[in-house]
Amino acid sequence: MSTSINLAVIPGDGIGQEVVAQGLKVLTAVLPQDVKLETKEYDLGAQRWHRTGETLPDAELEALKHHDAILLGAIGDPSVPSGVLERGLLLKLRFAFDHFINLRPSKLFPNTATPLAGRPEIDFVVVREGTEGPYTGNGGSLRTGTPAEVATEVSINTAYGVERVVRDAYERANSRPRKKLTLVHKNNVLVYAGHMWKNIFDKVGQEYPEVTTDYLHVDAATIFFVTQPERFDVIVTDNLFGDILTDLAAAVTGGIGLAASGNINPTGAFPSMFEPVHGSAPDIAGTGKADPTATILSVALLLRHLGHEDRAVRIEDAVSADLAERDGTFRSTEQIGDALAARVAG
Amino acid sequence: MSTSINLAVIPGDGIGQEVVAQGLKVLTAVLPQDVKLETKEYDLGAQRWHRTGETLPDAELEALKHHDAILLGAIGDPSVPSGVLERGLLLKLRFAFDHFINLRPSKLFPNTATPLAGRPEIDFVVVREGTEGPYTGNGGSLRTGTPAEVATEVSINTAYGVERVVRDAYERANSRPRKKLTLVHKNNVLVYAGHMWKNIFDKVGQEYPEVTTDYLHVDAATIFFVTQPERFDVIVTDNLFGDILTDLAAAVTGGIGLAASGNINPTGAFPSMFEPVHGSAPDIAGTGKADPTATILSVALLLRHLGHEDRAVRIEDAVSADLAERDGTFRSTEQIGDALAARVAG
Ligand SMILES: CC(C)[C@H](C(=O)O)[C@@H](O)C(=O)O
Ligand SMILES: CC(C)[C@H](C(=O)O)[C@@H](O)C(=O)O
Repeated sequence: MSTSINLAVIPGDGIGQEVVAQGLKVLTAVLPQDVKLETKEYDLGAQRWHRTGETLPDAELEALKHHDAILLGAIGDPSVPSGVLERGLLLKLRFAFDHFINLRPSKLFPNTATPLAGRPEIDFVVVREGTEGPYTGNGGSLRTGTPAEVATEVSINTAYGVERVVRDAYERANSRPRKKLTLVHKNNVLVYAGHMWKNIFDKVGQEYPEVTTDYLHVDAATIFFVTQPERFDVIVTDNLFGDILTDLAAAVTGGIGLAASGNINPTGAFPSMFEPVHGSAPDIAGTGKADPTATILSVALLLRHLGHEDRAVRIEDAVSADLAERDGTFRSTEQIGDALAARVAG
Repeated sequence: MSTSINLAVIPGDGIGQEVVAQGLKVLTAVLPQDVKLETKEYDLGAQRWHRTGETLPDAELEALKHHDAILLGAIGDPSVPSGVLERGLLLKLRFAFDHFINLRPSKLFPNTATPLAGRPEIDFVVVREGTEGPYTGNGGSLRTGTPAEVATEVSINTAYGVERVVRDAYERANSRPRKKLTLVHKNNVLVYAGHMWKNIFDKVGQEYPEVTTDYLHVDAATIFFVTQPERFDVIVTDNLFGDILTDLAAAVTGGIGLAASGNINPTGAFPSMFEPVHGSAPDIAGTGKADPTATILSVALLLRHLGHEDRAVRIEDAVSADLAERDGTFRSTEQIGDALAARVAG
């Protein structure tokens, strides 16, 4: 457990600034008196790019390394070509800091609207691989822009990378009451990567005899996400499938306004980074309509990662209680932040 | 419009046999007297593989070429290693016969249970690319089975392949009342393939000024599939995203028992192939529980492809009417087939 937290803050674009402010408010309120919090803000994102053409200069990447953790709001703006900030900033951080565990819990909180009829019980966590698969930026385009163009995308998967995320997922499953782990891939089509994932999944599973395992093709998994989400406990999957499934998971658990995530390097070699799953939502930026809960729940993941389990639980309980008592009247970004800060304080 | 149909039938595995029998029953019942139907069954699938080690020998691939169309039940069995039949038979057919349009309509029929609360109106069609993307079988594995293994999967995309499917999707959108086309990709991460898709989508769009267009990342698309499926009219997307999205679409429109598909080569150079989206469901094979409706709706797509639009509509109307009058009592595979055959006859 850390007795001081030296936090890097990247508010980013759109609603990023607004939700991060509430995340920091709750973090300050929940921290024990004797834990010293220092924050340093980094000006990265669309505005910086427009101003200087830079996405993530080496000096800032280097400076970020020396923090205990990073809190990120949201990156992206329609004024920037698609991919520039994603590849040049967000994914660059995930890859440079070897965030191989992309942790995305999904829980249907009380009194929260789900698009699913019959309100199933939903409480699972997706352990998404964060440093391989089709996200490596490998590939290219030949005769670009001509009728003879060929464009490739290469998914790269290593036993090293797959085993560490699979092992992490078994550990998590083993520590949860239901002890169930589902591998999601598409090994009937992506046979090279898929068979490697499945073989490693089976091999590591021998070390966890108490964990019940299951395999689903990604297409079939989406069916169960809407028809039987209660069947899932821990899911482990590749970078792209994890991206797709966690947005769907957010949708069925009441929306992207509640979905938290951690980009974690469990070795501690580099700082881990915590961010809401949602994007920068430029359409509602500045209106006070953004729900900061996803960021606040990401702060809980951050505290858990730094050893403050009790404070993480305090935030999660506060969110549960807050949602349970919600009466449907509109609350601004700041009002939600204030309410949660008040609940966790003390 | 053809005055004779020389149909290849591949019942395949599990429930394939049962549902195909009902598909043929309805096909026979709906065809005008003066259209001669000839069928030839091909013994392909798990049993054949166990017996002979063959998935799709050259002689049969050659013979299949000479049919007007192919009706396929389902391929796959847990006794066969994952990928063997998929790559060696199903995908081999799609690639050999250049089925570049994988057409998957999604409609929420009356009186059909959806997992979504509030029963949105759903009536869209996914035009999935069928011959490129991560499905080409490109890739490999190095140091297989060792801790130093590297496995790759290469998504190959060509302007040639993308333009023809995008154009087909515009044509379909243009002929529908809402005239709306959504491109789904992930061009903020898969920048090479994604930008090519987007550029071609925009370029071809200039020829269809009446079609309203939209772009969604695949992760965001899954959210809208459950929160606002009514926003979609025609969707065009790559092979893998189309695979994932159409299973999700089937789930929200009342299940995989109703989802039809056509693997179409619009040039007529090779026979097109029609199949339910569902798999071989070995767990219910032989129980009479399989719903043949997806296969019967695939027969409607087959008839439309061969120019018998009126007969296709007759089947679709029969399915609508049949579902509307359904009272919840169990009906066997054969009973559903009989009911639909009776409705379309005359
Ligand atoms: C913005 C994008 C690069 C990112 C991803 O694809 O990982 C986002 O969708 C996410 O899930 O965090
Ligand atoms: C069986 C499998 C190869 C196939 C696919 O991935 O295309 C199936 O899921 C489908 O959607 O038709």
